[in-house]
Amino acid sequence: MKQAILLIIGDEILSGNVQDSNSCFIASAMKGIGIEVKEIIALADEASSITRGLEYALANADVVISTGGLGPTKDDKTKKIVASFFGDELVSDSETLAHLKNYLIKRNRAELFEINRSQADVPSKCKVLQNHNGTAPCMMMEEQGRLLFVLPGVPYEVKPLVRDQIVPLLAEKWDLPYIMTKIISVVDFPESQLSEHIASWEDALPSNVSLAYLPTGNRVRLKLTAKGSDKKALEVQLSKLSEDLKPLVKGKILSWNGDNIAEILAEVLKERKLSIATAESCTGGTIAKMITSVSGSSAYFIGGIVPYDYHQKIKILGVSEESIRLHTVVSEAVAQEMSKGCQNMFDTDIAVATTGVAGPNKDEFNNDVGIVYYSIRIKDKEKTYKLHLPHLVREDFVNFVSQRVIQDLVVMLSLS
Amino acid sequence: MKQAILLIIGDEILSGNVQDSNSCFIASAMKGIGIEVKEIIALADEASSITRGLEYALANADVVISTGGLGPTKDDKTKKIVASFFGDELVSDSETLAHLKNYLIKRNRAELFEINRSQADVPSKCKVLQNHNGTAPCMMMEEQGRLLFVLPGVPYEVKPLVRDQIVPLLAEKWDLPYIMTKIISVVDFPESQLSEHIASWEDALPSNVSLAYLPTGNRVRLKLTAKGSDKKALEVQLSKLSEDLKPLVKGKILSWNGDNIAEILAEVLKERKLSIATAESCTGGTIAKMITSVSGSSAYFIGGIVPYDYHQKIKILGVSEESIRLHTVVSEAVAQEMSKGCQNMFDTDIAVATTGVAGPNKDEFNNDVGIVYYSIRIKDKEKTYKLHLPHLVREDFVNFVSQRVIQDLVVMLSLS
Repeated sequence: MKQAILLIIGDEILSGNVQDSNSCFIASAMKGIGIEVKEIIALADEASSITRGLEYALANADVVISTGGLGPTKDDKTKKIVASFFGDELVSDSETLAHLKNYLIKRNRAELFEINRSQADVPSKCKVLQNHNGTAPCMMMEEQGRLLFVLPGVPYEVKPLVRDQIVPLLAEKWDLPYIMTKIISVVDFPESQLSEHIASWEDALPSNVSLAYLPTGNRVRLKLTAKGSDKKALEVQLSKLSEDLKPLVKGKILSWNGDNIAEILAEVLKERKLSIATAESCTGGTIAKMITSVSGSSAYFIGGIVPYDYHQKIKILGVSEESIRLHTVVSEAVAQEMSKGCQNMFDTDIAVATTGVAGPNKDEFNNDVGIVYYSIRIKDKEKTYKLHLPHLVREDFVNFVSQRVIQDLVVMLSLS
Repeated sequence: MKQAILLIIGDEILSGNVQDSNSCFIASAMKGIGIEVKEIIALADEASSITRGLEYALANADVVISTGGLGPTKDDKTKKIVASFFGDELVSDSETLAHLKNYLIKRNRAELFEINRSQADVPSKCKVLQNHNGTAPCMMMEEQGRLLFVLPGVPYEVKPLVRDQIVPLLAEKWDLPYIMTKIISVVDFPESQLSEHIASWEDALPSNVSLAYLPTGNRVRLKLTAKGSDKKALEVQLSKLSEDLKPLVKGKILSWNGDNIAEILAEVLKERKLSIATAESCTGGTIAKMITSVSGSSAYFIGGIVPYDYHQKIKILGVSEESIRLHTVVSEAVAQEMSKGCQNMFDTDIAVATTGVAGPNKDEFNNDVGIVYYSIRIKDKEKTYKLHLPHLVREDFVNFVSQRVIQDLVVMLSLS
């Protein structure tokens, strides 16, 4: 099996200033063509680190992909280091120069050509993969059958380079096996208990199949990964393993093949032809964002409202002033009235509503940080939930609650 | 200067299944106390990888922090490997056992105690830092003045452990220098041009100060990092350097000290006492989410609406059917009517509105993927922008546009 190592170059990653997202995308793309990523190494934008990284990676993997350090500014050093690592020199590549000029002209930025000219300097031995979304080209070096791809760091430049150029090139070059995965989402079954409960099934897994437990809130995703040369056989194998698992986890399975909870919801809503709307206070639009992150969501997502100021809850959603006076804004009653108002406003089958205190401070009604009520309304059925999550920072609180609302909705739709 | 290496353990990271966010948080926390993270290595959940990672990291850093692989299930192996690496053995720690029992009882999960009992087994030589938000404790090993912290992988368990226990412990143990940063946001100045323009200033930077260019959309964040033992002197140094930069980038500076665009907006809105509301179609709630990610945003964010279905744009925001018929939903006219309707609905000083095609398919009016119009309305002033971003995938499109809307609003408020 071919193996890859990713080198993520950039001080901004090491200082915690920028969250790297390239490695996740590239790793997933490699897995898709049967290449195993064995390590991801984030390195400083500095000659000795990059050189050591290249040495280690090229000695230990069949393909090395680096990102970052290709900008026109002085803090970007990757290209020179790569050339010297291979005992090569930088030369101006006429095709890349023409591509660069064209790229800038198309964007009405012709005046930048002289300044960016040096971006067409590449190691003389490299093969250039042109970058259609930025000024730094991707360079491929080959030595003793091992490949190095040097990419820029901007994610929306990296993605098309990997997807449209590197992946086809590798799939064409090597006879790669298949890596197939199946993700089974289990709810209401703590990881430790689940693991004991399915131990005999897990112990009997064939040697080409591995299992990982990926907990998210109170959902555990069981991820089966099967490797082999026969795609059809792997499919059969994975579905047979699921069948064997079925009797052990009856009534606890949210999805037999889904990872992202918004995609799992999409499946259910499309199948049942149900429409949905959201009314979010403490989650501030995150549930709407998650639902609309699925392409085609306009088929079932009608709209959302974020009545952040409490007067808006009254004015737009018809929450009663008395409920607020009696129970404060963060209460079961208000959550229920919000989902009711939302269902009416958007005229949908389903409405969900959240109200809570994301922190770091108590709200104006003195409600504790981390308290949240959410109401899920499916036609004339309604259920209100309360969580207390005082240990989560604001961002984590919002994401946790949003995940959980969608998950509980899927549970209500599927398991009850 | 003390250096750290982070080891991110978990197959789910290497397969691109889970985006690691721990490393970013930990790196930022380390920098905050003057420890430089020199490498971040993501490794497989597998004995030889973890052992090699430990060897390399402990030989090359003063402090090593690992995350992941501490769960109760069979795919988690870190703890045993750490013990054997140090020639130690696992013993049941009574204090950790009591903590675990207590933790589960408090959560009405006492029945899980027996199953999780093994989570209180720790290397005999370790110091335990109790985890108040999960069942796996954090373990600290010390050898020849070098420290290893072994943490679980769940981000909301990692954050408090790092912030409340590891950071104070390190700050107390070592006499650490200060690392101070200042982030200057420049707009409308392409990275390559900016770099030429400020070259003499950059070349004259003192040796304890480094500069990084961090581009985000059409904004470039100039990040100055200064290291030294005198906090006050570093502050003076950084503000002197900013002063020197000022005349070179006149009229292009969005913020002299801010990283996150929603936080920069918060500063401006609070200072000018302005309220804001959002009407989002193609961005699906992301702008509202970004604005409300800032704590205290309820002081200026009144509410948001996501009229995803176009009938809702008409019904709720008063967009005219004729505009849609003449120009389709993705048009300057509709964006303008949306921001107008939004400003009226929430009665705010500012309203922003987006309408576009996030893809991957054309919309029902046959508008191209990647087209977006957004309208920014500040009291009676309005400006409409159009972007065409056909190369961005759905998620990147939404994030790019949302960033850009907030940024252009700050530009309108500050620079024009």
